[in-house]
Amino acid sequence: MKENALVAQAGGPTTVINSSLSGIISQCLKEPSIDNIYGCHWGMLGLVEDNLIDLTQEEAATIEGLKYTPSSALGSSRYKLQESDMPRVLEILQKHNIRYFFGIGGNDTMLNVYQIEKYCREQGYELYGMGCPKTVDNDHFGTDHTPGFPTAARYVALSILQGGILARDMQKVDQFVIYQTIGRDAGWLAAAAYAAKQSECDPPHIILLPEVPFDADKFFKKFENVYNRCGFVSIICGEGIVYADGTPVSASKITDNFSNVEFGAMGGTSAAMMLHRMICDKYDYRGEFQVPESLPMCSADRAVASDIEEAFELGQEAVALACRGSSGLMTTLVRKGKLPYKVSIGAFPLDQVAAKTKPIPAKYIAEDGMMMTEKFREYIDPLIGELPEYVRLKFIPVK
Amino acid sequence: MKENALVAQAGGPTTVINSSLSGIISQCLKEPSIDNIYGCHWGMLGLVEDNLIDLTQEEAATIEGLKYTPSSALGSSRYKLQESDMPRVLEILQKHNIRYFFGIGGNDTMLNVYQIEKYCREQGYELYGMGCPKTVDNDHFGTDHTPGFPTAARYVALSILQGGILARDMQKVDQFVIYQTIGRDAGWLAAAAYAAKQSECDPPHIILLPEVPFDADKFFKKFENVYNRCGFVSIICGEGIVYADGTPVSASKITDNFSNVEFGAMGGTSAAMMLHRMICDKYDYRGEFQVPESLPMCSADRAVASDIEEAFELGQEAVALACRGSSGLMTTLVRKGKLPYKVSIGAFPLDQVAAKTKPIPAKYIAEDGMMMTEKFREYIDPLIGELPEYVRLKFIPVK
Repeated sequence: MKENALVAQAGGPTTVINSSLSGIISQCLKEPSIDNIYGCHWGMLGLVEDNLIDLTQEEAATIEGLKYTPSSALGSSRYKLQESDMPRVLEILQKHNIRYFFGIGGNDTMLNVYQIEKYCREQGYELYGMGCPKTVDNDHFGTDHTPGFPTAARYVALSILQGGILARDMQKVDQFVIYQTIGRDAGWLAAAAYAAKQSECDPPHIILLPEVPFDADKFFKKFENVYNRCGFVSIICGEGIVYADGTPVSASKITDNFSNVEFGAMGGTSAAMMLHRMICDKYDYRGEFQVPESLPMCSADRAVASDIEEAFELGQEAVALACRGSSGLMTTLVRKGKLPYKVSIGAFPLDQVAAKTKPIPAKYIAEDGMMMTEKFREYIDPLIGELPEYVRLKFIPVK
Repeated sequence: MKENALVAQAGGPTTVINSSLSGIISQCLKEPSIDNIYGCHWGMLGLVEDNLIDLTQEEAATIEGLKYTPSSALGSSRYKLQESDMPRVLEILQKHNIRYFFGIGGNDTMLNVYQIEKYCREQGYELYGMGCPKTVDNDHFGTDHTPGFPTAARYVALSILQGGILARDMQKVDQFVIYQTIGRDAGWLAAAAYAAKQSECDPPHIILLPEVPFDADKFFKKFENVYNRCGFVSIICGEGIVYADGTPVSASKITDNFSNVEFGAMGGTSAAMMLHRMICDKYDYRGEFQVPESLPMCSADRAVASDIEEAFELGQEAVALACRGSSGLMTTLVRKGKLPYKVSIGAFPLDQVAAKTKPIPAKYIAEDGMMMTEKFREYIDPLIGELPEYVRLKFIPVK
């Protein structure tokens, strides 16, 4: 008897999650053992609420178009599956004769897929549960990188490259610029800005990572040094940077001129804004902070072609593996070649990837803790793809 | 005797100012009456400080490459030319045998070119002074639109389109999103987001313009209405929105060199952040604010092809007109055709354009003051160019 497949997208979006969804649907349609393919509407919430939609009835053009459509077409949520939800989940899976379950998501989602698969097995219900990685934070264990990260990284690198030219040309007006990236615990996206840097005075000048405790003295020392050598300072910071004692920089108790502002409230302040204030308080400089927030997570016009393709293949492979009897795995990207860049698709046990985060390895962080190393360039450049080259005048003085 | 030409870029940057510079240099090289072409290093500051560079010595590839290089390759400044600077300016123009002076800039720059040309004429020094418009704010008089605006507007529309899909798909987690644009007095860039909207529940849902006093009651009423109908709210605000009494919504009290209030991230706070606080205080909702600040002013990878071309032609024409005896004019874009879009190059007296700003005409603003009209779509769509189309699932429920 033919059986049905179910797919869920969970957690925050990326530009290419729908490409994985496209890969999963298209592969399901090819597999003889799968009859209908259903989707959870609104992520894991859709699962516990039996809010399923029928993806078998979508047009071929829609399934193809998903490759290029940002965000989570099925709708997402951050619903945290409880142990107590499991009987209900099993009941729903049985009701719809679902034997294949695919979760596209981050570390929490991988944990959920693992828990569901384990519970079903314990109850004697045969379910093939497979995960497909997704997060712009790039903090999954077991994979060279995570789909969505290369595109978000490219967005960051383009912003720093172009915003850096602007800052250079405007240095008589504004002395600094601060760009803030998402990524609470891991600084991969902030680090990605390094791809824009070719020489000492090219932006970014200072990279602040959540992995490295923020030290105001060291920061200001580097700031002054860069300003004196380059004439302006380009700073990039991860949103989650913290002081040595763990206090978030974004929530520090710096004197506030605006009585309306309370620091530390959810989303009501930002690390970049606090750094801006600290610099303005200390020097007579002018600058700006840029907080594009989730925009790099949906920038389909800036998508890296290989990111779209890899996300698609990770989806296809998750289905192919499940249909050949695998379960409890997340499909992964394995770097096979540095130059030229080459990856193959692998798989990694869900219980080893679930709910852990992968910080930036020490070898990628420069000694001063505020810049990346050349080893990191080997990692990041092939993911982001070529950046545009811009001209620069010779500045030959007229006598 | 052959004479020399001088060009300055002044004020804030755009993605295509260098395209106008490219047009000016390339046309100067073609004109038999012009010998050398010089540039002011760091805008008008370079002029008063006799900091000129020799553009005649640049490679052809560099001059061509300027068309695609964002920001102000000559370096810019916001130096405010004083009446007392004029004798010095005249002395420098005479010293270098400069007969042609081109300023690429905003309203203040047009005023400067006008003042220099007038002073020289009064002193019996024959100078041909011409302006070339530039500002992402689109607030120049006398031109259908200003180079740099279409590209920045496209950046805004893309951000709202893609960020809107993200907000729609994440509505179970975040109920609203606020995007802030630059533009202190004119809301053209905030208005541009309208290009992303096709139907009622498409973002943006609320557009807040500096031209329309902010009314918190009306805002919350519309917010609730949109939330109930669409499930999430996408808001775009100009950085310079003010209450009816003129108080900035951003609560910023910091002023710049021209005593203008710094509304954006420069002021250490932002209108988007304050709106975010107001919404969170009133409802139990979660959302984010996005402040990309000057990034839309340098997004060369998102440049509109016609914007680059128009900027180039405005530069060429300024030189061509000056070499045929015109002076005291700014070259302009005149809309000749709606469908298909067609513009021609015109010219407008500098003294009529200088130091004025062009607000959004009332016919483009919807009755509630928080949305644009269909008339505005006719204006904006051809400037921005086609936006990507994304797919949407049918959401057929599984019984």
